[in-house]
Amino acid sequence: MEFTQPLARLIEYFQKLPSIGPKTAMRLALHVIKMPENEVSNFANALIDAKSRISYCKTCFNMSESDPCEICSDITRNKNIICIVSETKDLMAIEKTNEFHGLYHVLQGLISPIDGIGPDDIRIKELLYRLSKEDVKEVILALNPSVEGEATSLYLNKLLKPFNIKITRIAFGLPMGSELEYADEMTLARALDDRVEI
Amino acid sequence: MEFTQPLARLIEYFQKLPSIGPKTAMRLALHVIKMPENEVSNFANALIDAKSRISYCKTCFNMSESDPCEICSDITRNKNIICIVSETKDLMAIEKTNEFHGLYHVLQGLISPIDGIGPDDIRIKELLYRLSKEDVKEVILALNPSVEGEATSLYLNKLLKPFNIKITRIAFGLPMGSELEYADEMTLARALDDRVEI
Repeated sequence: MEFTQPLARLIEYFQKLPSIGPKTAMRLALHVIKMPENEVSNFANALIDAKSRISYCKTCFNMSESDPCEICSDITRNKNIICIVSETKDLMAIEKTNEFHGLYHVLQGLISPIDGIGPDDIRIKELLYRLSKEDVKEVILALNPSVEGEATSLYLNKLLKPFNIKITRIAFGLPMGSELEYADEMTLARALDDRVEI
Repeated sequence: MEFTQPLARLIEYFQKLPSIGPKTAMRLALHVIKMPENEVSNFANALIDAKSRISYCKTCFNMSESDPCEICSDITRNKNIICIVSETKDLMAIEKTNEFHGLYHVLQGLISPIDGIGPDDIRIKELLYRLSKEDVKEVILALNPSVEGEATSLYLNKLLKPFNIKITRIAFGLPMGSELEYADEMTLARALDDRVEI
């Protein structure tokens, strides 16, 4: 038996989403068929609504309903510090800590020559423009400790040097609650390199 | 920062789907915002379309666009054998093997007193009606080897005895390609119990 066409099409759409394989896509699609009709149309509306109402802040490229976004237009935020992240989800993770009260700049990607993504494909030009206009005293690089993240951090570090701004990056080392014995060599080596005086 | 309302609502809908936790729901929602607008509206249409066009076959309770479904109305199928499954996804799994050419009956659930699901809550009445009308020679029980599946199989076995139909169930034992050494005790005990003469 083949899937009927409307089911096959729905499975196909679920499968296009990240981390959804063919089996999960089928489960999700079959679940939708079992949902009450008004729930399905609410879900469909939520998709269209979110897509049509949310776009990007023209200043920091965070996803937002308004431009400038809630963070850029928040007068209680410290405008002298900009935290540079790769994606909106990283911004959200940092916001959850309630530890950072400055502004952000979302690069919308990382430099990755293998994937053909160069410095011009992410929001670096827009960052330079901000730094030339705004009174920024510190830039925090909060990119993933991956090859792409490190490459982008290095590139930005070189590029931002002439601005005479303090450049920092988030610490890499042992995660809280972990055991030294089980840490991988890369992490442990980094934790040793980045040791701080107490 | 709180999620903006349209994003929060979309995350909430994704999270209602089976096997989607809060983190995955956020990833999926953020992915939707990045998708081209027409892709999002196609996805939304696929949801509504699948829900409105697919319902249940009144004979076997398989999900289908037509009633009777493609399987029930297929004249090349053997009408003398009915394979009883719990859900449409089990039917699909069996269809993929290309080994079974009879009809199905989808119970749409399993007996589970803990969850308050009794024999009247699944499609057993409809099965009895079919058996009394149709010329069925064999019923194959293809339910999960779980507590609920076993309970339902036992119940059906007792209930169907008076019909004078051959009742079989799919084999439980070591999965193909597995190693005996790593099989759990329950499976190994079952494989011994169900040994067949060669």
